[in-house]
Amino acid sequence: MRHIISVIVENKPGVLSRVSNLFSARGFNIESLAVGETEDPNRSRMTIAVAGDENVLEQVRKQLSKLIDTIKVTDFSDIPFIERDLVLIKLKIVPAKRSEIIEIANIFRGKIVDVSERTLTIEASGTEEKVNALIKTLRPYGISEMARTGRIAMKRGSGE
Amino acid sequence: MRHIISVIVENKPGVLSRVSNLFSARGFNIESLAVGETEDPNRSRMTIAVAGDENVLEQVRKQLSKLIDTIKVTDFSDIPFIERDLVLIKLKIVPAKRSEIIEIANIFRGKIVDVSERTLTIEASGTEEKVNALIKTLRPYGISEMARTGRIAMKRGSGE
Repeated sequence: MRHIISVIVENKPGVLSRVSNLFSARGFNIESLAVGETEDPNRSRMTIAVAGDENVLEQVRKQLSKLIDTIKVTDFSDIPFIERDLVLIKLKIVPAKRSEIIEIANIFRGKIVDVSERTLTIEASGTEEKVNALIKTLRPYGISEMARTGRIAMKRGSGE
Repeated sequence: MRHIISVIVENKPGVLSRVSNLFSARGFNIESLAVGETEDPNRSRMTIAVAGDENVLEQVRKQLSKLIDTIKVTDFSDIPFIERDLVLIKLKIVPAKRSEIIEIANIFRGKIVDVSERTLTIEASGTEEKVNALIKTLRPYGISEMARTGRIAMKRGSGE
């Protein structure tokens, strides 16, 4: 089963290493990871998407909680949450296809963020599912480059 | 000086550890990190925002390039690029302030993604500068929780 785990940590050098070492020591491949600021400048939030054996993952969660720089560990498996993922997709285009691609971007509420004679770059955000659907729709047009943030997640205020 | 570095790596367990260890061994604190899928399912893109001594950072870049799982290292310092950052901001609200906050979200082209009697959650994306400006504007209303992906970056097609 896939899990999204959020870890609030002290914003210090070495913390990322300690957290990633915990996963790699057990052979877990992190699918996506986003590390960014929180409401407190002294703390960072790491959002980790990972799949693997439940029992081993339970051990990892416990060890994460025990790290000296960890403030809080949340597994979103049983919590109503909001997730968002952001993608930048650069397409190689022929001018005749441009309007067709712009139409697809609009359907997914994406934004055109860069245009050149032969390329078009689209920004889009949403649930992982939505972003995956956009990528699938655009793939036949020729994706030349793609960057994805990985998911961030937050407990719904309406679920509290 | 701050740098945004993108590293295309093989999508394997342990790669994240090796990369983050390179930075932490030199005392670099990574400001933000986003690790996500690329156009090739066997490869991930790590986008690292880091500040520090130029000479030491140059060494880190060289060592990153030498890692067995590294495909390509790009430093965006001298390249025209697009950057995007995504944030989820949960605010504690009193009903009387709701419309005021929604107006701010609209100005920044943010979306309201969750509402409850006492909370409002906003999603917004853009350059780091824009996201910082939104956070600054919302802070007086009372941010209870914030998650940020960190920046992703891509060379402009129009700069090629």
